Amino acid sequence: RHRPPPWGRAARSLPGLPPGPSRAFSNSKVLVELDESSGVATMKFKSPPVNSLSLEFLTEFCISLEKLENDRACRGVIFTSAVPKIFSSGLDIMEMCGKSTEHYAEFWRAVQEMWLRLYGSNMVTVAAINGSSPAGGCLVALTCDYRIMVENPKFSIGLNEAQLGIVAPFWFKDTFVNVVGHRVAERSLQLGSLHPAPEALKFGLVDELVPEEKLQEKAATVMAQWLALPDHARQLTKSMMRKAVLDRLVAHREEDIQNFISFISKESIQKSLRMYMEMLKKKKG
Amino acid sequence: RHRPPPWGRAARSLPGLPPGPSRAFSNSKVLVELDESSGVATMKFKSPPVNSLSLEFLTEFCISLEKLENDRACRGVIFTSAVPKIFSSGLDIMEMCGKSTEHYAEFWRAVQEMWLRLYGSNMVTVAAINGSSPAGGCLVALTCDYRIMVENPKFSIGLNEAQLGIVAPFWFKDTFVNVVGHRVAERSLQLGSLHPAPEALKFGLVDELVPEEKLQEKAATVMAQWLALPDHARQLTKSMMRKAVLDRLVAHREEDIQNFISFISKESIQKSLRMYMEMLKKKKG
Amino acid sequence: RHRPPPWGRAARSLPGLPPGPSRAFSNSKVLVELDESSGVATMKFKSPPVNSLSLEFLTEFCISLEKLENDRACRGVIFTSAVPKIFSSGLDIMEMCGKSTEHYAEFWRAVQEMWLRLYGSNMVTVAAINGSSPAGGCLVALTCDYRIMVENPKFSIGLNEAQLGIVAPFWFKDTFVNVVGHRVAERSLQLGSLHPAPEALKFGLVDELVPEEKLQEKAATVMAQWLALPDHARQLTKSMMRKAVLDRLVAHREEDIQNFISFISKESIQKSLRMYMEMLKKKKG
Repeated sequence: RHRPPPWGRAARSLPGLPPGPSRAFSNSKVLVELDESSGVATMKFKSPPVNSLSLEFLTEFCISLEKLENDRACRGVIFTSAVPKIFSSGLDIMEMCGKSTEHYAEFWRAVQEMWLRLYGSNMVTVAAINGSSPAGGCLVALTCDYRIMVENPKFSIGLNEAQLGIVAPFWFKDTFVNVVGHRVAERSLQLGSLHPAPEALKFGLVDELVPEEKLQEKAATVMAQWLALPDHARQLTKSMMRKAVLDRLVAHREEDIQNFISFISKESIQKSLRMYMEMLKKKKG
Repeated sequence: RHRPPPWGRAARSLPGLPPGPSRAFSNSKVLVELDESSGVATMKFKSPPVNSLSLEFLTEFCISLEKLENDRACRGVIFTSAVPKIFSSGLDIMEMCGKSTEHYAEFWRAVQEMWLRLYGSNMVTVAAINGSSPAGGCLVALTCDYRIMVENPKFSIGLNEAQLGIVAPFWFKDTFVNVVGHRVAERSLQLGSLHPAPEALKFGLVDELVPEEKLQEKAATVMAQWLALPDHARQLTKSMMRKAVLDRLVAHREEDIQNFISFISKESIQKSLRMYMEMLKKKKG
Repeated sequence: RHRPPPWGRAARSLPGLPPGPSRAFSNSKVLVELDESSGVATMKFKSPPVNSLSLEFLTEFCISLEKLENDRACRGVIFTSAVPKIFSSGLDIMEMCGKSTEHYAEFWRAVQEMWLRLYGSNMVTVAAINGSSPAGGCLVALTCDYRIMVENPKFSIGLNEAQLGIVAPFWFKDTFVNVVGHRVAERSLQLGSLHPAPEALKFGLVDELVPEEKLQEKAATVMAQWLALPDHARQLTKSMMRKAVLDRLVAHREEDIQNFISFISKESIQKSLRMYMEMLKKKKG
């Protein structure tokens, strides 16, 4: 029953791009495997130690996602981590510390691009969250259609930007509100909360918890359930639900980049980030 | 305590229309009984086999609702089914298959009209859901002020349009989001889910479950509770809550009709609907 | 650990206003105590018999709040009642009955001002709800960052305006929807519900319940948790979450005052309010 049904994937390839054969491709940061029989790809984050979203990571992520988006054989993607105990630690602080204005602009545009492509993807997207997922890592999960998390209470998830003295941008917030509602989002964002898996389930931040050894199987089952629907109607429905929030960033994209640059360039913010990095180093040492 | 309180129903009759005496009126598709002592009407859907929302049904529904709306003696309406096991199966697929553009336009305008009148009704509206209620049937329930469903898990409710390869229009979506929130709506609409009664309760899609034999009694009790409030303040409050969503359809009504026509006229959609009807016939056979 | 962390309170004093020393100040309606070591003020409502929000109360409330807002030593405020069994009974009906148009305008502007300052406050605001909290009293609680209520089921909370034949203004509604979501707000506002403490918890109208003797301790603990975050990031986050709703009133402030005046001046409304006051007097008598 995992075979694509007859309504599967109308021609979505770009003109001139032949339908892709089954394949696995790997960059240095992400590993992609596509199972042609089910139409499901798995994208594994493999950027140790913590899968931080560096400019390089984001670039490879977007290229890989676009390849899949344009591949007729692919109808859904499962995102998971190849690094133990961490899904993704979020935006790479190194990219936001002591760099040039041009670098900040390039980095922020890449973060936006990742979100725009993933939140607006025509494919079914499932996050198989096999580790902690703070800040930008949480955003990646929130941006998917469905979230399954390992039931280990040591793994936590949340938009904890406020803990670092920074502010989640409005489109992180919009995505969060769409998932957990206004009240939970307001409290969680102000407190910069990292929710242990059971609490994340309670708030609807993730859709279900499973034992670690069942995660991939569960993700495949959920994916099959979503792929049982005709692609076209499902895609139009998804687009209808997300359009307002996607359009808001598209309309304010350059302004959002300028806001990021002026905020991140402040000496007080740079100091906070350096202190935070020091703290992380000490924790490890 | 079921007598209308002094604040009940300010003059809402149209000029020239005398205040109505107690009455029952029946068209071929809906049966209306008004209990003058309580000010409560019951509208029963009696269009076997499945109370589908045909053009004829919708026309009679709107005429009946308008009569009640203009009747000083009526302050609230309970909607229920006279057909066993089904509340309403939703929009009549026959009206959307192999018909002329003019017919599609007339039909869609009637669907809009039903929703506009019901969602914007000054009366208290209670859905007593005594059977399954997919698609447009679910919309009728969502559009009421309160939903009571028979606790039979064989009865299900949901906006399952995606299952048929079609897309719920934006105002179905808006109504759904207002009831269950964005996250539940997004998932349920993409999956075209039909929720068994207990799950519908859990998601807030219905407000409570009762045994079938208690349904009418419960509906009357709930109605009395809502009618204990002064009409005027309750009506203004209801209007304040629903205005944004009502205004959106009013502002885009013709565009929405054109969208429906161009979508439904597609050969691929016509084919999906024919396949779905075949499936329904086989099920019965 | 209650000492302000290094990031505590950037210079927010108005120019020329020296940083305030620790102090307690009392007007006739509110009593304010500031604990400099923790940076936390407690504002106690002491306007017996029911802490109704009279023009005088609102004026003192706003002046006190502004003093704290401009006091570097203060980072958070706990609101509670010095009157047994009641947090606040809401807007003072005496101010809305048989007064001049000018008085209605002045009163309504004061209500708006209270909400604008409290909902937009840079400080952490915690409601320690030690009694019933109907209508405007509920609004004060909803406007805080966090709500802790005494677990006594005899204490209830809600926007019960509809019970009095009046309508909660759109910004009461917006604040309510931001806390409990659209569905709960729609039902509760139409029914003018007063929710006993356990039900209020279930609906998310309050965040937790505690025994009366633990209330102040719990409020202090929660406050310390919120103050553990850097002020600047928390304030920007709070502002991002609330800006849309705050801006709506700012944009329609004069219109909202005119609406209030024309509504409250109606003879039917005046009659309803007089009847309600008679009922209250009889209850006491």
